[in-house]
Amino acid sequence: MFNFRLEIAYDGTSYCGWQAQNSSKKKSIQEVIERTLQKIFQEKIKLIASGRTDAGVHAKAQVANFKASKEIPLKKLQKALNGLLPEDIKVAGVKREPPGFHSRFDTKSKLYRYTILNRSYPCVFSRNSAYFCPFHLDIKLMKKELVSLLGRHDFSAFRAHDKKERDSVRTIKKASIVKSKDLIHIDIEADGFLYNMVRNIAGTLIEIGRGKLGKGSLKKVLLSCDRRRAGPTAEARGLCLVKVKY
Amino acid sequence: MFNFRLEIAYDGTSYCGWQAQNSSKKKSIQEVIERTLQKIFQEKIKLIASGRTDAGVHAKAQVANFKASKEIPLKKLQKALNGLLPEDIKVAGVKREPPGFHSRFDTKSKLYRYTILNRSYPCVFSRNSAYFCPFHLDIKLMKKELVSLLGRHDFSAFRAHDKKERDSVRTIKKASIVKSKDLIHIDIEADGFLYNMVRNIAGTLIEIGRGKLGKGSLKKVLLSCDRRRAGPTAEARGLCLVKVKY
Repeated sequence: MFNFRLEIAYDGTSYCGWQAQNSSKKKSIQEVIERTLQKIFQEKIKLIASGRTDAGVHAKAQVANFKASKEIPLKKLQKALNGLLPEDIKVAGVKREPPGFHSRFDTKSKLYRYTILNRSYPCVFSRNSAYFCPFHLDIKLMKKELVSLLGRHDFSAFRAHDKKERDSVRTIKKASIVKSKDLIHIDIEADGFLYNMVRNIAGTLIEIGRGKLGKGSLKKVLLSCDRRRAGPTAEARGLCLVKVKY
Repeated sequence: MFNFRLEIAYDGTSYCGWQAQNSSKKKSIQEVIERTLQKIFQEKIKLIASGRTDAGVHAKAQVANFKASKEIPLKKLQKALNGLLPEDIKVAGVKREPPGFHSRFDTKSKLYRYTILNRSYPCVFSRNSAYFCPFHLDIKLMKKELVSLLGRHDFSAFRAHDKKERDSVRTIKKASIVKSKDLIHIDIEADGFLYNMVRNIAGTLIEIGRGKLGKGSLKKVLLSCDRRRAGPTAEARGLCLVKVKY
């Protein structure tokens, strides 16, 4: 068997997320790519991603691997995939990996970006890739607060209230907030993320930026390990999986 | 009567263009905005734009004016419009003008941008706002060729073959090609444009960049006044009306 690794970009707007959801009428990104791979390889293909992304969440470079019994030259495979895939899912790169490579288990870290459009009226071009916030945001304070999340912590205050991962300890390696014209980018790199963790952190940071939560509150929320203390889950459209490191 | 001026941004992907087309099942941008204005003003409103844009063509700042018998504060009007308009049409600004102001007749110049994505695979995020060209393009040559269009010329070689404007003489005031990572921007500012003119110039420049047309050919095409000598009309999705000057 040959082990192929794909780097995948997608606009998640029209999908129920990476993985199929029984509750959703929308397709999953995984099933669209698997079906396309099956057409090309003429055999059953199981695609393993670095992790799931939610409905409406995007990826610049999701990584997924699959095993197939045929060898297809990489450039040819990428071309065939991009020719058959819909406009909102494209393959940025194809590699061959040793048999043992596993997209999820071998992940060293992931980088997510949460994007906020901060001006008085919405943008027609970034409407699906940025969360529109017309209120004044105190970026300086947001930056200072974010620092308290760096390092190894129990992030259960920022996990989804309906999902309880066995282990809620993660290590945030890097975190930054950069403003570029009307856009604010919150970048968070960690060894792993709890379900909804970035969107819950972003939602809390927005509350802080708007003055609804005061100085030092991000640290207090973190230490409380209480989801009810954090801000609301920020909209999916602002979130993008930017990089997976191995 | 009060004369209002709107600056409008739109993603033209889902529309038949600025103006209603009997042949299209899609809505026009003009009718969507007019209907919204009529809801707000509770009277019949006629919107006059700086010019039409085609199906699939975008605008960052189309300008249109209309007359209404009521005075509504500008900020309030913008908010009401953006609250009612769909996600792909938004109002970037509202101004009051003297009664004589006319969006089309008073135009001094317009700036259009044609965007090309030049890399080996398509982009999911810019798929509706850039023309995907996977072939090598000789940007240096394209830049040199473009210079020959500057100034006052008969541009009939670049007009749509099914539209014959009475006067095909226009003045290109500025023209440039800028490459920024994978994106190539062709910016053309003129006192006016023939129907399809920018897309026909872009299509010809792409042929030149690909080596299908040689050095000096843009000037030859221009002087020929023969549409058949120019390249194909480049895809609508790459075109954006960036600025209208008065």
